[in-house]
Amino acid sequence: MSLVELSERLGQALAARRLTICTAESCTGGLLASAITDVPGSSSYFLGGAVTYANAAKHSLLRVPLSYLQSFGAVSPPVALAMARGCAALFGADIALATTGVAGPSGGTSEKPVGLVYIAIVAPFHAACQHFLWPYDRLGNKNASAEAALKLALTWLEVSGSAPAPPTSPRSA
Amino acid sequence: MSLVELSERLGQALAARRLTICTAESCTGGLLASAITDVPGSSSYFLGGAVTYANAAKHSLLRVPLSYLQSFGAVSPPVALAMARGCAALFGADIALATTGVAGPSGGTSEKPVGLVYIAIVAPFHAACQHFLWPYDRLGNKNASAEAALKLALTWLEVSGSAPAPPTSPRSA
Repeated sequence: MSLVELSERLGQALAARRLTICTAESCTGGLLASAITDVPGSSSYFLGGAVTYANAAKHSLLRVPLSYLQSFGAVSPPVALAMARGCAALFGADIALATTGVAGPSGGTSEKPVGLVYIAIVAPFHAACQHFLWPYDRLGNKNASAEAALKLALTWLEVSGSAPAPPTSPRSA
Repeated sequence: MSLVELSERLGQALAARRLTICTAESCTGGLLASAITDVPGSSSYFLGGAVTYANAAKHSLLRVPLSYLQSFGAVSPPVALAMARGCAALFGADIALATTGVAGPSGGTSEKPVGLVYIAIVAPFHAACQHFLWPYDRLGNKNASAEAALKLALTWLEVSGSAPAPPTSPRSA
């Protein structure tokens, strides 16, 4: 399923549940927010996004602890989850998606090669992080990561939708 | 010139001048940041971006005065300039680009129709705002706005490059 189709399906699911979403992006660099906002009417559920390329921005905007960045590195599960948590708090949204990884072509190491990406979701009563090792070039890795983030949100919406609706957080706007 | 070509040219100009950039996006919804970060090595000059769809995010993240939002509306020159100023301060970048407009297909009024977009730049000793009235659909309006923002930065870099280099602000990372 393409970025457009995933974004449309996400928009329908969010609107039906009256839930809001926000994004914290490193390796996808704004592509995830752009895909979500390609959908007409997305302003009713998309509150905003932070593209935090510099580590200083991850800390100052998203409150990712400096100790996480120093101990685990920017491309790590603790940082991905902290980015999502910080983003949800920053925008006051119900759901936050975060991406951090090595898009390439440079920046890879033997421990953290090009294509390694962590994607996190924070939602009511839920937090999770997935990792991927994409085999693509820079644009392909960005695209695959944005798709994976949208699928992560859709999966949570499907699973949680079969249970009683959780209480939603206060809306900021 | 396409988004990719403009982003590559911008990257070369920024790297040559050792200047950093950040983005504050409303109507482009992350597309501008995504285009800039499509360029390999962009992490050396792109510090980050804020996608502020909700007015509350424009105020809380970018410090756009509530009085501007109430008096002029989110789609206005004062708000575009305030978004750029707030973004430069938030990320500690030399240059900030901001977009705010009505991407459509809904949300237009007789005073502020679909396609109306304000694009602002803040750079050392410089601040400017341009307005456009695009005739395209939502995706076309997003794309044209991102292109216009990149051109605005390139024009400033060309013009200011012929004068002695201005002092740069402290780097945040």
